[in-house]
Amino acid sequence: MSVLIVGSTALDSIKTPQEEHPRLLGGSASYASVAASFFAPVKMVGVVGEDFPKPCLNLYRKHKIDLEGLQIVAGKTFHWSGEYETNMNNRRTLATELGVFETFTPRLPASYQKSAFVLLANIAPSLQHHVLDQMRRPKFVVADTMDLWLNIALPDLLKLLRRVDGLVLNESEAQQLTKEHNLIRAARKIHRLGPDYVIIKKGEHGAILSARNKLFIAPAFPLENVVDPTGAGDCFVGGMMGYLSTAKGSVDANLRRAIIYGSVLASYCCEGFGLAALTRVTPAAIARRVKELETLTRF
Amino acid sequence: MSVLIVGSTALDSIKTPQEEHPRLLGGSASYASVAASFFAPVKMVGVVGEDFPKPCLNLYRKHKIDLEGLQIVAGKTFHWSGEYETNMNNRRTLATELGVFETFTPRLPASYQKSAFVLLANIAPSLQHHVLDQMRRPKFVVADTMDLWLNIALPDLLKLLRRVDGLVLNESEAQQLTKEHNLIRAARKIHRLGPDYVIIKKGEHGAILSARNKLFIAPAFPLENVVDPTGAGDCFVGGMMGYLSTAKGSVDANLRRAIIYGSVLASYCCEGFGLAALTRVTPAAIARRVKELETLTRF
Repeated sequence: MSVLIVGSTALDSIKTPQEEHPRLLGGSASYASVAASFFAPVKMVGVVGEDFPKPCLNLYRKHKIDLEGLQIVAGKTFHWSGEYETNMNNRRTLATELGVFETFTPRLPASYQKSAFVLLANIAPSLQHHVLDQMRRPKFVVADTMDLWLNIALPDLLKLLRRVDGLVLNESEAQQLTKEHNLIRAARKIHRLGPDYVIIKKGEHGAILSARNKLFIAPAFPLENVVDPTGAGDCFVGGMMGYLSTAKGSVDANLRRAIIYGSVLASYCCEGFGLAALTRVTPAAIARRVKELETLTRF
Repeated sequence: MSVLIVGSTALDSIKTPQEEHPRLLGGSASYASVAASFFAPVKMVGVVGEDFPKPCLNLYRKHKIDLEGLQIVAGKTFHWSGEYETNMNNRRTLATELGVFETFTPRLPASYQKSAFVLLANIAPSLQHHVLDQMRRPKFVVADTMDLWLNIALPDLLKLLRRVDGLVLNESEAQQLTKEHNLIRAARKIHRLGPDYVIIKKGEHGAILSARNKLFIAPAFPLENVVDPTGAGDCFVGGMMGYLSTAKGSVDANLRRAIIYGSVLASYCCEGFGLAALTRVTPAAIARRVKELETLTRF
């Protein structure tokens, strides 16, 4: 089954202590879609300006991502630039130029509206709502979010939580949303807000899946060289949804393994700037790391 | 086989946002010995003053801890007091009164010297050396340490690393020791300093075992209520060594499972003040949480 993915489509200028790369293909929808594309056909929803570089479009096409829902409009593509500290965990935003994103209204082509799996990747909750409004009874809907929306669009986000099956967020966001330091208690509070599945990302420490009193503790794939962690969280959820949409059996039965696949996609993402490493990955390489994670966690 | 454990034996006054308890039995040797006692006979080495409360001695005895190596001398027992912040991860020391610890020289009774498993729990590296000097060819020696010794006794600690099979330390200590943020690279650097086994504790995020190019990613047991984390790291390594000393087969083959047992003991430790929760644990309860960790991590 195909996965519908809405999110940001952007150009990222990224600086790490080692390197600097301007105007790479970025945005939550780009990362999530490429990650999901290793498992399933992806229908992407987004907006870019007329300045959007052809090689970026070609990268989507290489991954057979359906671009019917990608609007190309007059104006400039969303541009984000950021800089990582030496530890590669903390980053600060140097500039955010919204460009055509400022007036973006996602419109779903008819062929998108029956997608069974929907990933509302990180984007304003109002736009996530707008996409859901256009869907016809999707089977499984997951939303990602970020601290920005907790700060400036909390009512919209809370309304969204009543409409989704799963929420993905990171540790500090879960704590901010619930005013609860303990992640198990935080997850339980989030369940009460709506989602049956709460996935808390802990970066290099892995992730926790809470499914109404059932927990799964997922490892991160251990990396020796983190080149650029931008988009790793998007690849995590994109890989997870891509795997889920093609796995046989129930979502409930497949979600643990889907999270492991998401972790592996996120690990490859971190090994290159922007999408450079991820786009070179092969299904065999993905399978190898999933196998390795089994070995690394067995006792 | 018995486990020899040397470390601090203290009275702890602990304050959390919820409760305050003065003069509880504490110290790295106390926590590690009680944790190890669920698996193996423990021979403890330490020092206390004449003020050491009888109920504390009785707690050791309840766990059949061999106290022949516990010196009871004129003066006051080591007293530590500390306060936890709301998140229960950060704590600050309010007072440290060394008392009889200031002049402590560990002396091993003859019956201790042939112990096969030696745990040099957190204590000055010079004292850890002194214990090793008195041992006759132990089979497996593990040292724990803390940031204090990295700051004030680094040469002693580096010398010790060449004499031990395993080193246990936490994430920030590993980073401080190696000047390396990435834990996989940090572990590799520590191997070069001597130990075949490097165990990096990450608190609620679990632990990593590095065994010369073989990694194990261990989960922490997820807790909803952390009452008092004091001594959890000591219980982790105590439980690990206790299990190791009685498991059939090679240390290499048993270490992963030993770490899981250590995690479980640490989790029980956190559920009460001081040793209150740990001392009430049963072998059945330990086995239950080990089983639960299997379920929580399976994919």
